[in-house]
Amino acid sequence: MIARANNLDVLAIAAHRDDIEQTCGGTLLKMAQRGYCTGILDLTQGEMGTRGTADERAREAAEAAKILRVSWRQALDIPDGRVENTWENRLKIARVIRERRPRVVILPYWEGRHPDHYTTSKLGYEACFVAGLAKLDVEQALSNQHSAFSGERSAFSSQHSAFSQDKTVDVSATIGANVSTGASAAVSTGVDGTVEGHGFSRADRTPEVAALAAGGLPAHRPFKIIYATLYYDIRPTFVVDITDQFETRFQSLVAYKSQFSDQEAGKDLFPAQADIHARTEAMARFYGMMGGVTYAEPFLQKEVGLVEDLLQIPVKSI
Amino acid sequence: MIARANNLDVLAIAAHRDDIEQTCGGTLLKMAQRGYCTGILDLTQGEMGTRGTADERAREAAEAAKILRVSWRQALDIPDGRVENTWENRLKIARVIRERRPRVVILPYWEGRHPDHYTTSKLGYEACFVAGLAKLDVEQALSNQHSAFSGERSAFSSQHSAFSQDKTVDVSATIGANVSTGASAAVSTGVDGTVEGHGFSRADRTPEVAALAAGGLPAHRPFKIIYATLYYDIRPTFVVDITDQFETRFQSLVAYKSQFSDQEAGKDLFPAQADIHARTEAMARFYGMMGGVTYAEPFLQKEVGLVEDLLQIPVKSI
Amino acid sequence: MIARANNLDVLAIAAHRDDIEQTCGGTLLKMAQRGYCTGILDLTQGEMGTRGTADERAREAAEAAKILRVSWRQALDIPDGRVENTWENRLKIARVIRERRPRVVILPYWEGRHPDHYTTSKLGYEACFVAGLAKLDVEQALSNQHSAFSGERSAFSSQHSAFSQDKTVDVSATIGANVSTGASAAVSTGVDGTVEGHGFSRADRTPEVAALAAGGLPAHRPFKIIYATLYYDIRPTFVVDITDQFETRFQSLVAYKSQFSDQEAGKDLFPAQADIHARTEAMARFYGMMGGVTYAEPFLQKEVGLVEDLLQIPVKSI
Amino acid sequence: MIARANNLDVLAIAAHRDDIEQTCGGTLLKMAQRGYCTGILDLTQGEMGTRGTADERAREAAEAAKILRVSWRQALDIPDGRVENTWENRLKIARVIRERRPRVVILPYWEGRHPDHYTTSKLGYEACFVAGLAKLDVEQALSNQHSAFSGERSAFSSQHSAFSQDKTVDVSATIGANVSTGASAAVSTGVDGTVEGHGFSRADRTPEVAALAAGGLPAHRPFKIIYATLYYDIRPTFVVDITDQFETRFQSLVAYKSQFSDQEAGKDLFPAQADIHARTEAMARFYGMMGGVTYAEPFLQKEVGLVEDLLQIPVKSI
Amino acid sequence: MIARANNLDVLAIAAHRDDIEQTCGGTLLKMAQRGYCTGILDLTQGEMGTRGTADERAREAAEAAKILRVSWRQALDIPDGRVENTWENRLKIARVIRERRPRVVILPYWEGRHPDHYTTSKLGYEACFVAGLAKLDVEQALSNQHSAFSGERSAFSSQHSAFSQDKTVDVSATIGANVSTGASAAVSTGVDGTVEGHGFSRADRTPEVAALAAGGLPAHRPFKIIYATLYYDIRPTFVVDITDQFETRFQSLVAYKSQFSDQEAGKDLFPAQADIHARTEAMARFYGMMGGVTYAEPFLQKEVGLVEDLLQIPVKSI
Amino acid sequence: MIARANNLDVLAIAAHRDDIEQTCGGTLLKMAQRGYCTGILDLTQGEMGTRGTADERAREAAEAAKILRVSWRQALDIPDGRVENTWENRLKIARVIRERRPRVVILPYWEGRHPDHYTTSKLGYEACFVAGLAKLDVEQALSNQHSAFSGERSAFSSQHSAFSQDKTVDVSATIGANVSTGASAAVSTGVDGTVEGHGFSRADRTPEVAALAAGGLPAHRPFKIIYATLYYDIRPTFVVDITDQFETRFQSLVAYKSQFSDQEAGKDLFPAQADIHARTEAMARFYGMMGGVTYAEPFLQKEVGLVEDLLQIPVKSI
Repeated sequence: MIARANNLDVLAIAAHRDDIEQTCGGTLLKMAQRGYCTGILDLTQGEMGTRGTADERAREAAEAAKILRVSWRQALDIPDGRVENTWENRLKIARVIRERRPRVVILPYWEGRHPDHYTTSKLGYEACFVAGLAKLDVEQALSNQHSAFSGERSAFSSQHSAFSQDKTVDVSATIGANVSTGASAAVSTGVDGTVEGHGFSRADRTPEVAALAAGGLPAHRPFKIIYATLYYDIRPTFVVDITDQFETRFQSLVAYKSQFSDQEAGKDLFPAQADIHARTEAMARFYGMMGGVTYAEPFLQKEVGLVEDLLQIPVKSI
Repeated sequence: MIARANNLDVLAIAAHRDDIEQTCGGTLLKMAQRGYCTGILDLTQGEMGTRGTADERAREAAEAAKILRVSWRQALDIPDGRVENTWENRLKIARVIRERRPRVVILPYWEGRHPDHYTTSKLGYEACFVAGLAKLDVEQALSNQHSAFSGERSAFSSQHSAFSQDKTVDVSATIGANVSTGASAAVSTGVDGTVEGHGFSRADRTPEVAALAAGGLPAHRPFKIIYATLYYDIRPTFVVDITDQFETRFQSLVAYKSQFSDQEAGKDLFPAQADIHARTEAMARFYGMMGGVTYAEPFLQKEVGLVEDLLQIPVKSI
Repeated sequence: MIARANNLDVLAIAAHRDDIEQTCGGTLLKMAQRGYCTGILDLTQGEMGTRGTADERAREAAEAAKILRVSWRQALDIPDGRVENTWENRLKIARVIRERRPRVVILPYWEGRHPDHYTTSKLGYEACFVAGLAKLDVEQALSNQHSAFSGERSAFSSQHSAFSQDKTVDVSATIGANVSTGASAAVSTGVDGTVEGHGFSRADRTPEVAALAAGGLPAHRPFKIIYATLYYDIRPTFVVDITDQFETRFQSLVAYKSQFSDQEAGKDLFPAQADIHARTEAMARFYGMMGGVTYAEPFLQKEVGLVEDLLQIPVKSI
Repeated sequence: MIARANNLDVLAIAAHRDDIEQTCGGTLLKMAQRGYCTGILDLTQGEMGTRGTADERAREAAEAAKILRVSWRQALDIPDGRVENTWENRLKIARVIRERRPRVVILPYWEGRHPDHYTTSKLGYEACFVAGLAKLDVEQALSNQHSAFSGERSAFSSQHSAFSQDKTVDVSATIGANVSTGASAAVSTGVDGTVEGHGFSRADRTPEVAALAAGGLPAHRPFKIIYATLYYDIRPTFVVDITDQFETRFQSLVAYKSQFSDQEAGKDLFPAQADIHARTEAMARFYGMMGGVTYAEPFLQKEVGLVEDLLQIPVKSI
Repeated sequence: MIARANNLDVLAIAAHRDDIEQTCGGTLLKMAQRGYCTGILDLTQGEMGTRGTADERAREAAEAAKILRVSWRQALDIPDGRVENTWENRLKIARVIRERRPRVVILPYWEGRHPDHYTTSKLGYEACFVAGLAKLDVEQALSNQHSAFSGERSAFSSQHSAFSQDKTVDVSATIGANVSTGASAAVSTGVDGTVEGHGFSRADRTPEVAALAAGGLPAHRPFKIIYATLYYDIRPTFVVDITDQFETRFQSLVAYKSQFSDQEAGKDLFPAQADIHARTEAMARFYGMMGGVTYAEPFLQKEVGLVEDLLQIPVKSI
Repeated sequence: MIARANNLDVLAIAAHRDDIEQTCGGTLLKMAQRGYCTGILDLTQGEMGTRGTADERAREAAEAAKILRVSWRQALDIPDGRVENTWENRLKIARVIRERRPRVVILPYWEGRHPDHYTTSKLGYEACFVAGLAKLDVEQALSNQHSAFSGERSAFSSQHSAFSQDKTVDVSATIGANVSTGASAAVSTGVDGTVEGHGFSRADRTPEVAALAAGGLPAHRPFKIIYATLYYDIRPTFVVDITDQFETRFQSLVAYKSQFSDQEAGKDLFPAQADIHARTEAMARFYGMMGGVTYAEPFLQKEVGLVEDLLQIPVKSI
């Protein structure tokens, strides 16, 4: 049984280290400042990057996590540049979801330039689904995958041997008692009879009640899945005001010194730090203007909203 | 100067008496139950209706307003079946907006079967705009219109002579001290520097500060304009849970006895009351299922949302 | 009372003479060949055309009508190049709809290059609506308009004096006993309780039962309004196979000799007849390929379809 | 050679037992009542369901099939919760399509909440395509798959051993001589030269003529593929009136007693039967109102329609 | 006859002084720098603005025009806050188009917050159409309007008397010999047989050949109409690189000292100049990033593009 | 190191031999006539075709290549009817892209009737991405794939043994010195700091600088990826005028004698050559009319355009 103290309120999933910092780092920081436990799951370890090694990037990711006050961060061993929506990858992510039991999952948007990004969107969604299948023993299913595909994996791993194990960044010690507070406890994740889409008879409706007999992790499905859209030019459903978090978010980005410092090597290829700041600010301000604030990050949800009080709807119409 | 006590928190504008009852009556009632002052502006008086006279419909509208706990209701003299987006009609509505100073205006959606409905949407929006033009004296502009068009109006009014004056339904006595409470007072309508769309230099940005020199009503622009979409099959931006208001809303609809009672005359043409209840319920339940509640009414807003707390976003994703 | 013999089954409304010939002439001919009574209402008389006079065009339109076996054709006096969605224009069209009582009305699509085309779409739709208002006396309303606007009209008519009267083309004698047959009689236009959109309480629901007291034409609303989309690049809802009508339709087009014959004047400006044939054929074949036939004309309807038998749905899927 | 008596007119394919009952059961029953042979292919056997065993669900599915007068029903052995668009799964479905040779295939819509649903849509479409490849021996291709993947399958099957064989429900005896009648015989599935999309040179155009040399099943491609959209909020292309079938369809749903009866176990998790009826009715009525009937089921087709007679187009426009 | 020296290559039309400076001023300056003659037509004179008088704004507009190297600028007398798509307004703009004969017209996008903006879009488009009607004498038609509406205008003008005449800003002396050069002469505006949309028989196809008999201005229709979309959040068709023009464009904006200087009056209401620079830059950078440049302005065209050389298409795909 | 002489300016990728001839053959010919080096990569060898053998089709493809003046053509060994977006297939295509280093890649559109077509679109896009990963050794990765999947492949290849090797068509001798000229040399493929989408920190940004240590092909990513849309009814971004290439393109299509000649076998199934010509012409003319030319081929790009000179934008607006 996973102790409540390990649970996350918000889990952001992305393909590469530094994706979260670019698309929703301000929002994660804001949620941490409100007392929520936040986490980041990077699917790959960045071994395809031109600059820096995977080890360097791991250290930088830990540093960025501290800056964003993230409680938990892990990198899976999915190959960089080859994120695929396979059963095995779904199981790997589902295991994390069952361990961390987030109420909100942030995924990248499902269209974009980089295949790893848009594939992560669909892969992450289906992993959330799989994580909620009460009768599925994720550990055993993963174990079956490993034996079945040992032939392929041994061959492929000759290129990826350095990344054969998931890397978890322990940031809890560093950032102190940032465990989930009453703020999140007050928000029940109950699945009490709400209709899920229009279908109402699928047995997977009730994932959380059934603990597996054989000691596996109990099923869990996040209440809310939202999509960070900053990498893609689509109108968001909502934005989050990060005016107070903007500069700290930028610091989390430049914590990736191997990528963003004004170093000699490759200086013709990477934009200088000043330029990155200008671009980052332009994007944040653009979405801020949409919501009537200075800086914001954009998100999309598939569901309609539910409004209790017309007088409380923000953003001026006219 | 208009006393604050006359101000409305929410004003719903529609073409015909009984439109509000069908599309957003539950939401109006819910807002009244939260302590807000609500109002209804019907643009026409129903003189084209097959059943009932305009006088009968006026009485029924007053009864429906009481049922929905609406503080204020008025019918303009725009011809039924001929709602047009003219300068004069915009001025007539703008005068009401300046008198009642609502923070939220509800309009019909801008597509649909009935021209009066979709024209009301555009007309109402532009009236909200005109109401905020600080240098415009609405009274004088209306007066200019009347003299200029006296030729046309006298000709046209031969058919519409019965409707030459706006009809205001005084429901305030009936429903008691339902004046705007602290709930609404706590919500400032300030226009403090928010960007309005992308343009930021139009002087009409600051409508509320300037009282007109010559004693006219001060300019006012609602903070929020939302569109009731129930008449049209479009995916709403959000729904409002009216599970607790549904049956009362239905009573407000059948208060239009001239239209909905199971009378002899025209009984082959009008659906029986039981059938109306079934259809009304199906619609409310359909939109309720979208939002994870039993009954709901659908709305659309043009703006993006602004979310402060990811953990508080309602409606289950998966 | 209008005799049934004058009723039309299908009425196509367009801005200019020769619009119908280009967009849905094949379909009109096909319907005539099935035994239906068809008609054309041209809103303008073509006085802005570079080639030919309005009188020439009137003769050509009559010739084209004969070729398409159209029972009835009329041109209103709306100014060419200035079709506007005014109350007066709606009344003029509504009068025709009440006189001819078509079950199906064909309008142009509501977007396009030519303002007269897209305005006709909206104007025609609202005229269909107005025609069904049982309490509206169209004749008297038109009379009111004329006296009210006499100032404007007399001024404007100095330019349009040649077109002060509607021109009706009597083609009935020519094409013989092409009156509406049992084919159309079998199709009831009843409005028995069907829901109109989502609104169900508007009294205009029952236009056809109420004859006006004062001798006016009884209200009528067409059962079906469809949009001919050939002028605009939008995916149609359905196409009509005109393989057998294609060449005759082309003959109806070149009946406009003042426009399409290979004359000397303006020969650098007008495509030669061979070129017109090639273009016409390309369009017809393009839409034909969509529907699995050789030549077709495209249409759009706003409503969803209603299918009785899955085995009878045409057009191969894969 | 497959005897005609085994052929189906309509085959509905879905991921889970009871999906068809929820989305298009009324339409299947209606087609059976018109004399057509209908069938259901469930891709999975429901082993991930919280309530009930796969065996129970098999019995319930047979009972539901009888209620809907379905002639043939089968469940494949694709794992519940893991429907994937693989070559092997396409072959499995293609084999069924070649055996049953349906003219119409119903698939779920390609977006939705449940990955099994939307994956079934794409998988089913591509299976229809594969089934029409004349030179492909589906049996041999499946056999190749089995030997190639034996490693994986043996590993995976440790969890799915109970479902190693497809389960066919023999409902033909129960429902009597419900073989395909002249009604379907009258509808030719010919592929005589129709253009398939815009491409016209692919040799797979002519699937049905070539019987395989080596005794395999002859190629077959359904004429029509339509998508049941009830699980997803999208505007349908057409609806099917199921007013007369609605209550029987509901009975087919509650035939899944393990899922829908008001049992003690899990009673907090499953909506009571009365609630299910209310929701089912709301959906059916909502789509019914779209088509001007009481109850309907919604469908989408990718192709444009093809209309022969404008006077016969159903659904009132205005 | 209008001398060629007065012709414009590009004419930007907007509702208010300073709209052009915000949405497409950089592009206009860039075109002037390439040697083209550019012009601005402001439909209103800004009498509704909170700050500044119409006279002040006229001087500021002239100053801004100089900064942008615009050859010609004029303000019509359409009332601020009441731009309407009337025949008279179309004629007023059409007269300008015939006088200046631009090859390219820039209009605002047809959706937005401000009714004057989106109405200008439609009004401007239809004015371009009217300007090309060879048989229309715009002067006479305007004269007819004036006499017909004298009643209305005299009444309305009591409020607008200060603006009874169009204001033309003579900037030609200031900016020297910025007449149209060979650059524009090389671009023929010929209408040689191109198909206009799908319709090919309208006589208005050939506007430019026919000079009016009675000395009126010859018809003219711009070759290209594009829409400046910066006020609205829609994906543009293309952007124009204004990296080298950005700061000068900003200077043209702050030339409106009555609006944008950091004055005492209204300082709580107007964003400070530094803030305006930040917002302006964010927008320009956002659209610049879309096109792979630093700063850009966004535009939309309705037509498809026509590409001669695949190797010359700009903007990196991946 | 690959010599520049082998480089292609444009590479068109399609699933089947004769796809290119149908969708973009005229454009390829036009580019060759401008002096560019063009190439075709067919992913399959057509073994599923009803008519003709793969060897016949190979000869025909070479003949068609000559007619279109294509410098290079190759067919991969991906199974016909089973194009899948696998890592292995991406690697196979990426190898070609690294060898031929095209600036422009043409892919099919991502929706359509034939799964091979739409899958090729996504597969080709992701292959372009993979080809640009500097740290990826494509040869070694392919080698790993082959050993890992040898079990599957040996099983599957029993059916596909005839196609175990890629078939390259040497057309360079035939068409002479059609090597890339200065025209293409003038177009740099530099990736100098342009922003790629909104993300700006991915190390894969700089693919071209890093040559692999171990002698593999250096990374390459095309500058531009465009989609040929002729197989699908979607509005193109732009069209290419092929009026001068149309008839030659048709000759390249009928070079596939096994498919398109008027042979006895299958004559009821294949459209006669005259019919193919008519359909081909209708499509080309339809898209030609969109762009104001006689014949054209349609394309779509995901990026916005970048315009330097408003006066040079083609295609008349009105």
